[in-house]
Amino acid sequence: MSPQEKQQGTEPMYELLYHPEIPGRGEYIRLVFEATGIPYSDVSNEEYNGYKKVQNLITEANPPAFAPPALLVHGEDYHGKPLVISQTSNILLYLGPKLGLVPEGDEIARYHVNGLAITALDFCSEAHDVHHPIDVEQYYEQQKEEAMKKAKAFTTRRIPKFFGYFETVLKENKEGNGMYLVGKSLTYADTTLWQVLEGIEFAFPKTVAKISKTYPLLSFFRGNIEEHKRLKEYLSSDRRLPFSMGIFRHYPELDA
Amino acid sequence: MSPQEKQQGTEPMYELLYHPEIPGRGEYIRLVFEATGIPYSDVSNEEYNGYKKVQNLITEANPPAFAPPALLVHGEDYHGKPLVISQTSNILLYLGPKLGLVPEGDEIARYHVNGLAITALDFCSEAHDVHHPIDVEQYYEQQKEEAMKKAKAFTTRRIPKFFGYFETVLKENKEGNGMYLVGKSLTYADTTLWQVLEGIEFAFPKTVAKISKTYPLLSFFRGNIEEHKRLKEYLSSDRRLPFSMGIFRHYPELDA
Repeated sequence: MSPQEKQQGTEPMYELLYHPEIPGRGEYIRLVFEATGIPYSDVSNEEYNGYKKVQNLITEANPPAFAPPALLVHGEDYHGKPLVISQTSNILLYLGPKLGLVPEGDEIARYHVNGLAITALDFCSEAHDVHHPIDVEQYYEQQKEEAMKKAKAFTTRRIPKFFGYFETVLKENKEGNGMYLVGKSLTYADTTLWQVLEGIEFAFPKTVAKISKTYPLLSFFRGNIEEHKRLKEYLSSDRRLPFSMGIFRHYPELDA
Repeated sequence: MSPQEKQQGTEPMYELLYHPEIPGRGEYIRLVFEATGIPYSDVSNEEYNGYKKVQNLITEANPPAFAPPALLVHGEDYHGKPLVISQTSNILLYLGPKLGLVPEGDEIARYHVNGLAITALDFCSEAHDVHHPIDVEQYYEQQKEEAMKKAKAFTTRRIPKFFGYFETVLKENKEGNGMYLVGKSLTYADTTLWQVLEGIEFAFPKTVAKISKTYPLLSFFRGNIEEHKRLKEYLSSDRRLPFSMGIFRHYPELDA
């Protein structure tokens, strides 16, 4: 729940249903609320037994969610139940126009924002698979040998490929001045890519340090997002969860 | 180009930009055109030097596409260039309402269709990663040992998890009568899931044979899609490309 919401004493319209204590994929959703100052409740982190509630809500939804994150929208009943939307990019697609995080009056731009957010989320998923290349239900230590091999391909080829792609997107979007991926104002593609880049740097600091100079627009873009007023406040608040052992993990042996 | 379009002698509005000769992720796009009889041009498979054209178009688009498939839409110029949309689920999202493959007059249902299509495509990506767990740029034979390990986790836990999920979705969508994932008519979530299930069975026939009885609605759903008039015609045409060495691959040693 955001501070202003707590003061008002009303329930927020939006509930984020996600795992507790890690930024994970929930962070892509938190960022769009925080960037726009829209109240939301982060159920697992704010309510007693919140994660139990999350698990029930996502399995009881119709259609059920395959996995967190999901978004519960109060006041938007659907077939007699509160609306639950799942899949990260789908939640962002739903919230984008409502929070003013897609270019106004440009329907086509919404598809470009969605496509770029999906590509950033693919990059996130690949980063996860580096430490879990064989089996998501086993520990890293049980697949460390394979992870070392995958890390080599990821750090030498995949990171440069994604960095190069987004550098080009920034360059080609003339009206964005290196600050925005689409159009001339902040979209959820920007907040999503920014979070992925933060995660990549957390997990692979040496690799990123080594290649950053090759992608000057990407560095400029990152610095600019951090200066966004509301995001800056959020990033220094205790609502911002640090990376730890979630999707992005720092194992020095997997870095360059 | 569809037969009716060839008769008319006009250029279709839509061009599918994808790799030649494999169904791959292009097939999710082909299926929505084929299911609705809307003309499209499959550039790589129909034009001389078509793949070269595909590669140029996707890198020259603004924003550029990260990878095929992409969709070029004639007559929908965007900033003075033909519109190109990329990312499979994003293309389907764009085409869904235009082709009548989302429930009519139900804005919310579009998010459910999108979420389910994304989950089906995640299943597709996981199936791909089974034969390429370490490095997409190396051959299967170079990562066969790791693929064997990943295949065990995929066939024993991930396939049942996804099958169980979609079985529940079909069960909970009462108005779909086991025939549709969302609502009471065909959506692109249905065609997408159907294609993924075809691919999973092609790649892992023993696994699917062993567990199919546990998911009766899923089997019913598959059979029903195949009886869809236009799809049935398409599936027996030479436009339908067989699975081979693309995303879904049949290596007997990776099956149960």
